[in-house]
Amino acid sequence: MNYFLNWNDHTGSQAEKFYKTTLWQGEQVMVGMNCLEPNQRQDTHAHQGADKFYFVLEGCGSFTVGSEERDAEQGSLIIAPAGIPHGVSNNSQERLSLLVAIAPPPGK
Amino acid sequence: MNYFLNWNDHTGSQAEKFYKTTLWQGEQVMVGMNCLEPNQRQDTHAHQGADKFYFVLEGCGSFTVGSEERDAEQGSLIIAPAGIPHGVSNNSQERLSLLVAIAPPPGK
Repeated sequence: MNYFLNWNDHTGSQAEKFYKTTLWQGEQVMVGMNCLEPNQRQDTHAHQGADKFYFVLEGCGSFTVGSEERDAEQGSLIIAPAGIPHGVSNNSQERLSLLVAIAPPPGK
Repeated sequence: MNYFLNWNDHTGSQAEKFYKTTLWQGEQVMVGMNCLEPNQRQDTHAHQGADKFYFVLEGCGSFTVGSEERDAEQGSLIIAPAGIPHGVSNNSQERLSLLVAIAPPPGK
């Protein structure tokens, strides 16, 4: 397999819903990307039994985790522990690209 | 807890060995940082049963994963699946800072 990737090669865009792609999935973790165009959002949801984090690659997002709501930009790490509701909106004028890791992977 | 962090607030340096810090640890994943000054290295090692990835935050590293050896710079994702030997050297003149995730966390 190819162990080396660059996120810049994996951005994408969808008109109807934010873009999601898996970069790699193992037994223990899934790592992927979410790209939100301006005005796109990921509704608040929770993963029972799975820890998740986002890392902001480009742009600025308005994140909700539990009862906290905060804008976070490039270089921010946002933690969503198992069972804690979380979501993100892109209220900016630029694309928001996020590295996302979920452990264990959804469906495992 | 604080769900929002920025990696720039968590860099560090050690003369005797590369710098390691944990940003967050849950039941399912540990996310942290490794900072390697020029000429520092992380020897090749493997995590049995734990998937790992590195994300290059700044600088350039010479990574080994399995039988692959490659330089990777800012924006690169390097996958080290469970049981696959991996390591990194900083052969550059600048600090190498890496976001690191291990699932499940070491010791779990």
